[in-house]
Amino acid sequence: MDRKVKVAPPARGLKVAPPARGLNIVPFVSVAHMMELVLAVGIEQFLLELADVIKVDFLRWEDFDKTPRLASHSVDGVIELMPTSDGASYGFKYVNGHPKNTSDGRQTVAAFGVLADVATGYPVLLTEMTILTALRTAATSALSAKYLAPQNAQTMALIGNGAQAEFQAIAFKALLGVRNIRLFDIDADASRKCRRNLTGTGLALTVCDTVEEAMLGAEIVTTVTADKRNATILTDNMVGPGIHINAVGGDCPGKTELHVDILRRSDIFVEYPPQTRIEGEIQQLPPDHKVTELWQVMAGRAAGRTSTAQITLFDSVGFAIEDFSALRYVRGLVDRLGGHAKLDLLADPDEPRDLFGMLLRAARAQPSP
Amino acid sequence: MDRKVKVAPPARGLKVAPPARGLNIVPFVSVAHMMELVLAVGIEQFLLELADVIKVDFLRWEDFDKTPRLASHSVDGVIELMPTSDGASYGFKYVNGHPKNTSDGRQTVAAFGVLADVATGYPVLLTEMTILTALRTAATSALSAKYLAPQNAQTMALIGNGAQAEFQAIAFKALLGVRNIRLFDIDADASRKCRRNLTGTGLALTVCDTVEEAMLGAEIVTTVTADKRNATILTDNMVGPGIHINAVGGDCPGKTELHVDILRRSDIFVEYPPQTRIEGEIQQLPPDHKVTELWQVMAGRAAGRTSTAQITLFDSVGFAIEDFSALRYVRGLVDRLGGHAKLDLLADPDEPRDLFGMLLRAARAQPSP
Repeated sequence: MDRKVKVAPPARGLKVAPPARGLNIVPFVSVAHMMELVLAVGIEQFLLELADVIKVDFLRWEDFDKTPRLASHSVDGVIELMPTSDGASYGFKYVNGHPKNTSDGRQTVAAFGVLADVATGYPVLLTEMTILTALRTAATSALSAKYLAPQNAQTMALIGNGAQAEFQAIAFKALLGVRNIRLFDIDADASRKCRRNLTGTGLALTVCDTVEEAMLGAEIVTTVTADKRNATILTDNMVGPGIHINAVGGDCPGKTELHVDILRRSDIFVEYPPQTRIEGEIQQLPPDHKVTELWQVMAGRAAGRTSTAQITLFDSVGFAIEDFSALRYVRGLVDRLGGHAKLDLLADPDEPRDLFGMLLRAARAQPSP
Repeated sequence: MDRKVKVAPPARGLKVAPPARGLNIVPFVSVAHMMELVLAVGIEQFLLELADVIKVDFLRWEDFDKTPRLASHSVDGVIELMPTSDGASYGFKYVNGHPKNTSDGRQTVAAFGVLADVATGYPVLLTEMTILTALRTAATSALSAKYLAPQNAQTMALIGNGAQAEFQAIAFKALLGVRNIRLFDIDADASRKCRRNLTGTGLALTVCDTVEEAMLGAEIVTTVTADKRNATILTDNMVGPGIHINAVGGDCPGKTELHVDILRRSDIFVEYPPQTRIEGEIQQLPPDHKVTELWQVMAGRAAGRTSTAQITLFDSVGFAIEDFSALRYVRGLVDRLGGHAKLDLLADPDEPRDLFGMLLRAARAQPSP
């Protein structure tokens, strides 16, 4: 927390008259800035603080405008816009999902987001959200597990060891005190990458050869695989009584990870039912199958885990309010730590109705050709 | 066209290891860059080229995913996301509309936008769109008037002399050869600002004391007022036969400019009926009132102006495809002229599944505290 975050120079090479007051400037958190912020705060502390903000926002769930995300599907993937507002601030995230992207070195999921002031409509933050999405997804998973996982759970199976995996492991360590992570991926290199990255964090790490082996002794299982199709990462026989399933990877139509029989034996908790019924594991179930909203559990309006034998399932798809919380949290960090650039994103003529005059003055300020 | 556009330095102050390949970099056109691009091309030439791109996209209207914009309304205004895709590229615009913003020096309408590659979901351009929206709105108005206005129209009444007004005047000069602009605004200062800004463009400018005076001899009338309420800028008696009405200001629910009797006498042309019926002048009419889609006129599938006595009305609300065209055009300008910064917007680990490892390497690359 005592480390100084370096502020990048403004992204401007103005040859024309600069705006007078700075209403045009939007703070921008680049990928490099985000890494600086996360490292300055510390990853575990960042996840703890972010989970607190998510909880605050889930507890005022009814204050938010909620809408399923606006998705544009194509052969290779999807591009989504996820907006929400609490009446004072407005946030949205742009996020893609392209499973084949890794073949040429791109991310399966890349994202950025904007927080804006509802009173003026002006953006107050533009930030990378690829790293931030991994963090908020992990924070939401671990936060939900505080209400749903067996008490004092020590061991988590982590199925799917791609880009999100370490964030999940660290979040469950930070928020729940999980100590043992049992890794499995169909690609053993991914598990080794995960073990290497998590070495030195205090977690005991076991790379497993099969899902069944990874499940041995696990009180929590996190599935976070990336295939864009209906897969069966877990079959019914693998899931014993009392386990908490944190199903993260199934997050769009046609993409699921669990056999439907597991769903039928589980008490299912979701973020926002209208979205989860389209995108989550429960797309495999009838549309009236009972689910519980996570915020209701947090608010004490619905029960979480009630018995040791119960199978609980958090059918995570990622909801706009979590991104809103993450944007709010990063906006606060920027105020605290300063790690951002200043983007000349908004036109700011001296006289608001004189947009054209701003162009004319710019022309006059240019050197003669 | 021979003026050099200055390229701003990258918006990064990396203390951590830079990404190896540049997949993380998104070109960013700031307000200053946009002004440089517009001035380098020339405003009239910019409008002509932009109108050409809009026409190309309107002629392939059926290739686009179309959806009404996603609006978040509040007491003071609205924040909207306007996405569309042609299957190869995806674009969206963020835009607000806050009529009271001018009281503290902000723009009523401010905007930015993103163009992305559908195949990867990666953004390929982030740009200011406050200036660009004014340009694309004016280009679309003038383009539609080529099909709808009386032939060889020389005189336009311009009602509402705020931020958009001069762009409309210049676009009608560039695309249609309009020579005389008759200005009216309830605030005479706005008209004087408009006259001042347009002096030297070759347009003959007359500031009028009433709407009726502005309409004298006008073959085209452009209404571009900003009140967020149902207003009656034009009454039925002001509109004689043969006129073309370019109604730009009425663009959200509850905001209209024309008396309904004018609509009943007009042949009405719109961009995208599902959106215009909610936001345009025709929100005053029954939902089955006949309207013609502008792209059908451009494609020769529907008639535009067919007689000299006909009153034509372009009920402009601004549609996502126009923004898409503007994003495409600016992306091309950036390739041609180079005016942009480089934003470190996307995480780009050396190994795509190793997002967490990128953080670890960043930590190692930091100087010791």
